[in-house]
Amino acid sequence: MDRIPILKMGEFLLVTIQVDMHDRLAIQLQEDLTDKIAVTRARGVLIDISSLEIVDSFIGRMLGNIAGMSKVLGADTVVTGMQPSVAITLVELGLSLKGVRTALNVERGMALLRSSIEDDDVAIETEEYGGPGDQV
Amino acid sequence: MDRIPILKMGEFLLVTIQVDMHDRLAIQLQEDLTDKIAVTRARGVLIDISSLEIVDSFIGRMLGNIAGMSKVLGADTVVTGMQPSVAITLVELGLSLKGVRTALNVERGMALLRSSIEDDDVAIETEEYGGPGDQV
Repeated sequence: MDRIPILKMGEFLLVTIQVDMHDRLAIQLQEDLTDKIAVTRARGVLIDISSLEIVDSFIGRMLGNIAGMSKVLGADTVVTGMQPSVAITLVELGLSLKGVRTALNVERGMALLRSSIEDDDVAIETEEYGGPGDQV
Repeated sequence: MDRIPILKMGEFLLVTIQVDMHDRLAIQLQEDLTDKIAVTRARGVLIDISSLEIVDSFIGRMLGNIAGMSKVLGADTVVTGMQPSVAITLVELGLSLKGVRTALNVERGMALLRSSIEDDDVAIETEEYGGPGDQV
């Protein structure tokens, strides 16, 4: 298996990580995901890590990178399904998943993405119609 | 990795198969899935096989078993994302995925499940209110 499948669900993309990540696979995933965001114009990315029993600094950095790249392309990222033991270890080791939002499961992750998209849309509308630009 | 994650999305369950299946993993998946259907009262199961490059008789039988078990528990099963080359091989080898419905991708699979659930609900309503039972 040389790549992780990316599923389109409405305006979101869903990735479930089930295999041990290594350098090449992580780079492949980043490429596939950014391509797919561009092609599908996705507004959000959900990364489910419920089957990962260990999240080390490599995985943490990869998740951070994906979130950063997606953000530049206009998509928010939420990491879902983290096992309680993983959460404990992360905090104990002082590994903060910088710039990465998390949710308990995919359903809550989707709700989080939907609410942040709505906020963005409101902000854009305000800027377009109610901003200082109209007061000239 | 000793089990395949099952994600709940509304009234459906989603399984993406990314790793090579073997006996123990297949049995584990069947157990986990039937448990989850019972707990979540899911109405449908989506199995994405877009990262499988080979679907042999073992996988075919497993998909058929899962569909059969889910049906007994009141959930329809749709297999999604089959690669074109896999479809060609299946037909050439004469392997028919008996009792398994397929869809091009997860989105279409969800639409298929939704429409079949609606049909079922209509059938149940007709039975309850308009069936011969009322005419006693």
